[in-house]
Amino acid sequence: MSGDESGPIRRHVPRIAATAGAVVASSAPAHAQTSAATPVRLGFVGIGGRGSYHLDCALGIEGVEVPALCEIQPDRLERAAGWVEKSGRPAPRLYGRGERDFERLCEEEDLDCVICVTSWRWHAPVCLAANRHGKHAVSEVPIVLTVEEAWRLVETFEQTGKWSTLALEQVLLEVGGGMYLTLLNMIRQGVLGDVLHAESGYVHDLRRVKFPGGSEPWRLQHAIDRNGNLYPDHPMNRIMPAMDINHGDRFAQLVSVSSRAVTLNEYAASRYGREHPLASRQMAQGDYNATLIRTADGKLVTLNFDTNTPHPREFTRIQGTNGVFFDGRGMGGPRIYLDGVSPESHRWEDAARYMEDYRHPLLDSFDPPGRPALRGHGGQSTKTPLTWHLLVEALRAGTAPYFDVYDSVTSSVISPLSEQSVARGSRPVDFPDFTRGRWRTRPPIQFA
Amino acid sequence: MSGDESGPIRRHVPRIAATAGAVVASSAPAHAQTSAATPVRLGFVGIGGRGSYHLDCALGIEGVEVPALCEIQPDRLERAAGWVEKSGRPAPRLYGRGERDFERLCEEEDLDCVICVTSWRWHAPVCLAANRHGKHAVSEVPIVLTVEEAWRLVETFEQTGKWSTLALEQVLLEVGGGMYLTLLNMIRQGVLGDVLHAESGYVHDLRRVKFPGGSEPWRLQHAIDRNGNLYPDHPMNRIMPAMDINHGDRFAQLVSVSSRAVTLNEYAASRYGREHPLASRQMAQGDYNATLIRTADGKLVTLNFDTNTPHPREFTRIQGTNGVFFDGRGMGGPRIYLDGVSPESHRWEDAARYMEDYRHPLLDSFDPPGRPALRGHGGQSTKTPLTWHLLVEALRAGTAPYFDVYDSVTSSVISPLSEQSVARGSRPVDFPDFTRGRWRTRPPIQFA
Repeated sequence: MSGDESGPIRRHVPRIAATAGAVVASSAPAHAQTSAATPVRLGFVGIGGRGSYHLDCALGIEGVEVPALCEIQPDRLERAAGWVEKSGRPAPRLYGRGERDFERLCEEEDLDCVICVTSWRWHAPVCLAANRHGKHAVSEVPIVLTVEEAWRLVETFEQTGKWSTLALEQVLLEVGGGMYLTLLNMIRQGVLGDVLHAESGYVHDLRRVKFPGGSEPWRLQHAIDRNGNLYPDHPMNRIMPAMDINHGDRFAQLVSVSSRAVTLNEYAASRYGREHPLASRQMAQGDYNATLIRTADGKLVTLNFDTNTPHPREFTRIQGTNGVFFDGRGMGGPRIYLDGVSPESHRWEDAARYMEDYRHPLLDSFDPPGRPALRGHGGQSTKTPLTWHLLVEALRAGTAPYFDVYDSVTSSVISPLSEQSVARGSRPVDFPDFTRGRWRTRPPIQFA
Repeated sequence: MSGDESGPIRRHVPRIAATAGAVVASSAPAHAQTSAATPVRLGFVGIGGRGSYHLDCALGIEGVEVPALCEIQPDRLERAAGWVEKSGRPAPRLYGRGERDFERLCEEEDLDCVICVTSWRWHAPVCLAANRHGKHAVSEVPIVLTVEEAWRLVETFEQTGKWSTLALEQVLLEVGGGMYLTLLNMIRQGVLGDVLHAESGYVHDLRRVKFPGGSEPWRLQHAIDRNGNLYPDHPMNRIMPAMDINHGDRFAQLVSVSSRAVTLNEYAASRYGREHPLASRQMAQGDYNATLIRTADGKLVTLNFDTNTPHPREFTRIQGTNGVFFDGRGMGGPRIYLDGVSPESHRWEDAARYMEDYRHPLLDSFDPPGRPALRGHGGQSTKTPLTWHLLVEALRAGTAPYFDVYDSVTSSVISPLSEQSVARGSRPVDFPDFTRGRWRTRPPIQFA
């Protein structure tokens, strides 16, 4: 209706999070410590495409030992063992006697941490086996598929002191050249004011990879059996630290709504013909799912999930009391609007200047040497990414990774909670408080 | 995690809506009929800023008579009467005896239609008074504030044959140079496939206008008293026709979640000081509200509402089975991605070419003559917009406007339904079926 608009207000109050007791990833540049440090012993469970990537990353860090590998496909297991030896390390012991052979690995090996890169259903079981046998664990996303698994990881950590986390999740530290880490820095400096709303999601057309012959055909079974937000962890890695979830606030409740399911059948029909069973197989998963999450402190998250329709990737938008950030993914890069600061009233400003001014120091101090990649063709030079260096440092320092067991299960448990909401006609579902009240005093996630 | 993506599929099936029985606004260019037609008699209730605009528009159409004006502020009433006379029409009869004098106008005047541009609470009462006295009515948004008012408008229409609608809502036909009308044309031609999800909203920083001295201070009372999506009609004017709501599908259920309320107090404190009562007055309305609406056919709407925080305007994104449209408001204009059509896999394409190719014919055929504006300074030339010409034509033809009473109350009733959901802890709330089942066979909204 009205074209009138609010004028500028200047009330920036920098909000610097307490550093005492904060989750500090490292007090020195990540690469500076790796050479002088004690050995870290890792076992790998699941060494397909993604697992091979992680193994390659690990072998690029001096002092990392890989005494044991576990994989159900013999060719993959042999190939991975070859990389370990090629890196100059001793031949690893191999575990390939079927789906549950990770249990033997966890029991028999002397390891600091198990890296789990299996298909989804084995993530929590592998983590639990590792913890129970005195090992930390890092899982690919999602770390749990059920609320029960989430509680089991928390309770096992509290009993054993061994954590399971999503510490290798890369969105916060690496996607967009560290854009979201810089954004977190801006938020910590009070640039956006208090965060009130965030919208993000996982919107990624995966039709091709889900079907027979694709790289992740097991995803199709999830779409056949389940309906909710099945992949919350990438956006949560951006959003949870920015909203201080489990570190001053907590997720209290969600509601979730799915559209009908139509595109996977259409895709199957177009690829295999109308007569193919997948062209008419009933899919539980609605093509588009939206989930709204409210925090105890009254923040709001809009979380989108769509891996079935044709589209470019999702965007992320964060609204604070002083302004709003839009990542402009695939649309010309990040934009910002700050009340009383941006030059034009209520118009987007290119955020490039802010991304420079608030660039997180960790992004510059981290500069590991290049090294030849072990997998792939021609041994091209590669660098082991920041996430991996931070994980290895946490293991050496005896501290939990910045995204700890409470954060990790809170992120992944959105899937079963959203499934519950959808199954109950979008009724609200309460979040468990995995921290049992300690969210009030746990300090914000920081990277020194 | 996987970066693999789906390849092109070609399965465009143009879906041309039935024209027989469709809601056809006009079969000839809008301006072609106005000169030769019978008089249309309009009464105006509420002639503030927006009401003056509408009166000016009406006076720009030949054959429109304005025999009666109603307004509680005497200066506004006199000023409006002056404009009517200045346009060469007879002096109107004036109704200014208090808040309920519109009832006398509806009873005593011989009018085709009443134009209601009062504050929100009077919209439904004015429409009902008009209908009961044999007049159609057009209201500014929202047309109702409660579910009861919505049913009363429907039942009164069914008893009297006189409709009440949001026929002067301009988003579909005029915003962005008719962008959403062209988008509707693209959707009707099957370009996006079947629409599965739409996200839009009303995200407009109105802090300044809400406070004392602003142009719409009555808005503040709504923020004090209510909590939900209080302004759904602008985005609904884009979305409902694109999703065939009440015309083949219907809204079945919604859930609504609001963030906490903080920015209005902060704004008041920054403007008037911390001691001012408005700096601490409890506001019911959360700063950011998100509402998810599911249709009977399984489509999904994400509807945002935020008039309290600093930001550029909202965006609109529509996802179909064949591709996705993003209006890029304030971000370089519309973008599109079409499966197997867009040149780069899963990358946004500038939609300019599509906006040309699918440009709605009505946008070109409508070209009314310029005329001096009656209000404002210096009598600059203006053109009465398309919405007004379509309304006058509908009145002459004896047909309902394209957005009829069922559509209009469905749009506005989102406010009270979202308030109910928020008040009940975001529980799902069922939509009334105002069409009582006729949504299944009502033909899609079309403009011939």
